[in-house]
Amino acid sequence: MKNHPKFAVVGGGSWATAIAKMLCVNEDEIAWYMRNEDAIAHIKTHHHNPNYLSSVEFNTKKLRLTSDINEAVAFADYIIFAIPSAFLGGELKKLTESLSGKVIFSAIKGIVPETSLIVGEHFHEVYDIPYGNIGVITGPCHAEEVALERLSYLTIACGDEEKAKVMADALSGNYIKAKITDDIIGTEYAAMLKNIYAIAAGIAHGLGYGDNFQSVLMSNGIREMKRFIKKVHKMKRNINDSAYLGDLLVTGYSVFSRNRMFGNMIGKGYTVKSAMMEMSMVAEGYYAAKSAFELNRKHKAKTPIIDAVHAILYEGKEARPVFKKLTEKLD
Amino acid sequence: MKNHPKFAVVGGGSWATAIAKMLCVNEDEIAWYMRNEDAIAHIKTHHHNPNYLSSVEFNTKKLRLTSDINEAVAFADYIIFAIPSAFLGGELKKLTESLSGKVIFSAIKGIVPETSLIVGEHFHEVYDIPYGNIGVITGPCHAEEVALERLSYLTIACGDEEKAKVMADALSGNYIKAKITDDIIGTEYAAMLKNIYAIAAGIAHGLGYGDNFQSVLMSNGIREMKRFIKKVHKMKRNINDSAYLGDLLVTGYSVFSRNRMFGNMIGKGYTVKSAMMEMSMVAEGYYAAKSAFELNRKHKAKTPIIDAVHAILYEGKEARPVFKKLTEKLD
Repeated sequence: MKNHPKFAVVGGGSWATAIAKMLCVNEDEIAWYMRNEDAIAHIKTHHHNPNYLSSVEFNTKKLRLTSDINEAVAFADYIIFAIPSAFLGGELKKLTESLSGKVIFSAIKGIVPETSLIVGEHFHEVYDIPYGNIGVITGPCHAEEVALERLSYLTIACGDEEKAKVMADALSGNYIKAKITDDIIGTEYAAMLKNIYAIAAGIAHGLGYGDNFQSVLMSNGIREMKRFIKKVHKMKRNINDSAYLGDLLVTGYSVFSRNRMFGNMIGKGYTVKSAMMEMSMVAEGYYAAKSAFELNRKHKAKTPIIDAVHAILYEGKEARPVFKKLTEKLD
Repeated sequence: MKNHPKFAVVGGGSWATAIAKMLCVNEDEIAWYMRNEDAIAHIKTHHHNPNYLSSVEFNTKKLRLTSDINEAVAFADYIIFAIPSAFLGGELKKLTESLSGKVIFSAIKGIVPETSLIVGEHFHEVYDIPYGNIGVITGPCHAEEVALERLSYLTIACGDEEKAKVMADALSGNYIKAKITDDIIGTEYAAMLKNIYAIAAGIAHGLGYGDNFQSVLMSNGIREMKRFIKKVHKMKRNINDSAYLGDLLVTGYSVFSRNRMFGNMIGKGYTVKSAMMEMSMVAEGYYAAKSAFELNRKHKAKTPIIDAVHAILYEGKEARPVFKKLTEKLD
């Protein structure tokens, strides 16, 4: 790898836009791939993404914008994927450039529907990327607050500490503090599981449960997350670190979270299908609930909240009685 | 003690009113002491507390309302104190009835300013009540949601499990689940410390920090609380249980919390004095910050958040630079 590595962002959504903004503070040039050519043209002319975080001004001299993912991959040493997990498979199919030797960071926080793997595992198993070249960028971080330059803390996980450090340095700035960890699996599962708990929080809210219950749900949620992750990848970690508990809280308590919103609609009586259509986008937690539930058949962690969300989303159960039963299992 | 013990509530505020409401579900008669004779007359005539949770209807046949604390104490076997900690000393001075043989439960969640002790310790040290007769009623629980009969979980702590059980049964109902624990010291410290973190959350909000930072603050707050309580009273406890983490969250994320509101005014530039005058009431966390800070001179737990709040409230430091420095210590 050259002295100063090059970075590419894959994705045109709000989190991708926030990451591009952070990188531009420290880098002279980054590649930025998005499918939408109109958005690219708009950024080139108007210096902001028309669809997401449109208040963020870019110095377009720093941006190699492209609608060809291969161009972005060829340019970069570090590639950050920040697209919905449901689109990852389709994007990767377009690749003719090799990923070998590249460092892949996931900012996706979800499960790949085709393989039911977290993104790091997917790259490892399907694309043969060694874990030393795989990393995770995790919050707690709403993209909207990055746009506002409000102080945010990121956690950068990579099996290779040097590479975590490179990424942390590339993202850090006045309003971004990035710490590193080697817990790729744990942080990525946490980022995925928290979306299920955010759906649960939304369902509870939609059903009329209040703040007292919400706090009990989050308290049980973090304990459940700890049990689950411990089964998947046992190592010394403090589940109350920002990358786990903080990330759960920022999502679970956010009225802007898509997952919470999706749950809220379910709680208010929408069917799963109509809630999805209404949102015109699938919440990551929808896939996560299925994968976590199925994965847990093997692990057998006690996961009453995941089980409840799964029953409502996939087993055709009514939210109200399922949550009534869930309340008996929490404490 | 007789077969079915009798209960008294001491206090006329919202939490006292919520506790009286819960007890009336299960008890035929309770004593309810409050200083305000007009409020007593109003409850007798109109069946609701005019000043707090006024939507709650009482069956006044069940209430022995009195403005004489001795009458309430004489009536009851279990006495629940639910007044601001700053008033406890004054109320206890009025006692001519002995507390010996009585079971004392604190629902105060604060520190007694005169002795800098948590309420249980105060009763033990000043009134010689054995720890087996001392208990704590803790949330996460906003009184307002009890009024709305929204599902809430209480934790009842007492050195004597039987007595914890008696209190839990007296409070439990359709919308109240109460679990018991023997961690009187830990739950009471948690209930007290969370008010300091709520002040910190308010200050951060007042200074313009966003939700990303708030979640980092809470994540650091629970870790700090764990370190602190472990020094004060080491025992096996899961700090993520509802009585600790849940209670922190319901207060820290509540826009209605008086402690958070107090902090918010400080963050927005009010002086401590003017914020207190504006609120016409002292937030519990104000005393807690002083006591926790001083107690920690001995314990030496790492408590950057408590230290920051103390510096602002008691050392005349400006909130903005103190929080700027604090952000460097969090992760």
